Amino acid sequence: MNAVHRIDHVREFIAQVRAQKKTVGLVPTMGALHAGHVSLIQAARQKCGYVVVSIFVNPTQFGPNEDFDRYPRPLENDLELCGKYGADLIFNPMPAQMYPSEQLTWITVEKLTAALCGASRPSHFQGVATVCTKLFNIIQPDYAFFGQKDAQQAAIIKKMIADLNMPLQIEVCPTVREDDGLAISSRNQYLTAEQRDEAPIIYTALRQAAQLIQQGETNPQTITVKMRKVLDRALLIEPEYIEFVDTDTIQPLDVLKGRVLVAIAAKLGSTRLIDNIIVDAKE
Amino acid sequence: MNAVHRIDHVREFIAQVRAQKKTVGLVPTMGALHAGHVSLIQAARQKCGYVVVSIFVNPTQFGPNEDFDRYPRPLENDLELCGKYGADLIFNPMPAQMYPSEQLTWITVEKLTAALCGASRPSHFQGVATVCTKLFNIIQPDYAFFGQKDAQQAAIIKKMIADLNMPLQIEVCPTVREDDGLAISSRNQYLTAEQRDEAPIIYTALRQAAQLIQQGETNPQTITVKMRKVLDRALLIEPEYIEFVDTDTIQPLDVLKGRVLVAIAAKLGSTRLIDNIIVDAKE
Repeated sequence: MNAVHRIDHVREFIAQVRAQKKTVGLVPTMGALHAGHVSLIQAARQKCGYVVVSIFVNPTQFGPNEDFDRYPRPLENDLELCGKYGADLIFNPMPAQMYPSEQLTWITVEKLTAALCGASRPSHFQGVATVCTKLFNIIQPDYAFFGQKDAQQAAIIKKMIADLNMPLQIEVCPTVREDDGLAISSRNQYLTAEQRDEAPIIYTALRQAAQLIQQGETNPQTITVKMRKVLDRALLIEPEYIEFVDTDTIQPLDVLKGRVLVAIAAKLGSTRLIDNIIVDAKE
Repeated sequence: MNAVHRIDHVREFIAQVRAQKKTVGLVPTMGALHAGHVSLIQAARQKCGYVVVSIFVNPTQFGPNEDFDRYPRPLENDLELCGKYGADLIFNPMPAQMYPSEQLTWITVEKLTAALCGASRPSHFQGVATVCTKLFNIIQPDYAFFGQKDAQQAAIIKKMIADLNMPLQIEVCPTVREDDGLAISSRNQYLTAEQRDEAPIIYTALRQAAQLIQQGETNPQTITVKMRKVLDRALLIEPEYIEFVDTDTIQPLDVLKGRVLVAIAAKLGSTRLIDNIIVDAKE
């Protein structure tokens, strides 16, 4: 496994790999790797001849009052995990490598960025779409691997790739959970012991929604009321949103039909967690 | 020479060419090819093993009251010119091929789009940046060729390529002019005989500016007054702007220094023409 910090070095490695006609897979991460990322590296390892993991805490996707500075950066542990699960190349640039001069070019994806996390994080997805495009252009992968946990991000990147004719495909891998159901996230480590005890209730509420939809409930309000009752059992969880949207277009659904994405964001103290579940509504 | 309409066909041709390790050059055009485009094709021919000319009147870069519908589309003549000057592949898609579903993804380049034509054509450069990105991703050229006549466009595309780490380089070729100095443009054919007679005064005004700057004049207002006097000789020319900006950043200059782009846009009846000149200010 090789680890590089510079864009020109990445390009050299990729050129060599291309000459060997290997398929290139990219797992873009902000580091603080966990079982969720490992599942992405494993999926990439299975599908591609050469696996690149990028580790970059991207400043342009954090809002001014978000956790950019305190976001965990356990690089040694990350490199160890990448090696263990068979990554070939780690790209770990400094911000000045990715943004050497004032960044004036931004990619926006309309409509898909309006609902869910887009409402409270107005420039977040612009930062995500822009840095992903930069990484795609630097690494030129055939496949990029994203987690279903960040469902809105995955839908946005898919639409961006289609709209801009980018020559790669996206693979979306299932959310990895702790035994008690909590979606694994780099931000879980911010939780106090008490918050951590209550956090799995988010997934309990999502499963309740899935059950109701599978039973034929099509009214999101009815389901929201029942989910809020579940979440109310947790004293330390402050829901930010509970939304029902189309999985591909991320447009809010008044009546549930098709592939429904049920998504929750909630604050536990100053830590913000998100989770979701995809359910096929009854015909 | 081959001509294709479909993206998947372009990709097949490019894959073959790549297998032969040829350098790919792209000349993106809206058709209605003239001597300016020919100079770009020739520059591409000289630099690259395989030359692609795209011919696409891109709807997303026209404003609602602009000339999209009446923009000339002399395809047979265009193909003949491309053949004559040695293009290898013509990509001539229909709008539905380039925009098969609602386009929600847009590329914006801040600051560089504010001055000059950006002021009166607010979404023009967003459309240009987005369609160029699509063409770059479809054709994956090593080089793309643009004309200096569209100086702001060239500066924007250059900054976009740098900001997004796109794996290609831009070559900017000199403006081609008629014998009387008028910059060659597809829109010149809209001019009446009387307008055509007066049109070269635009370039006369630019040369006057160049002379003054070379003589050491650093005050743009002083030069503007003299340029307006020149333009006033033409009864049918209505200047839209006369601006002095930095050639790379397209930021207006209060005091002329460095590489100065002097740019004019003017209306002749309903036809809007642009032209510019680059002058190195005295140290």
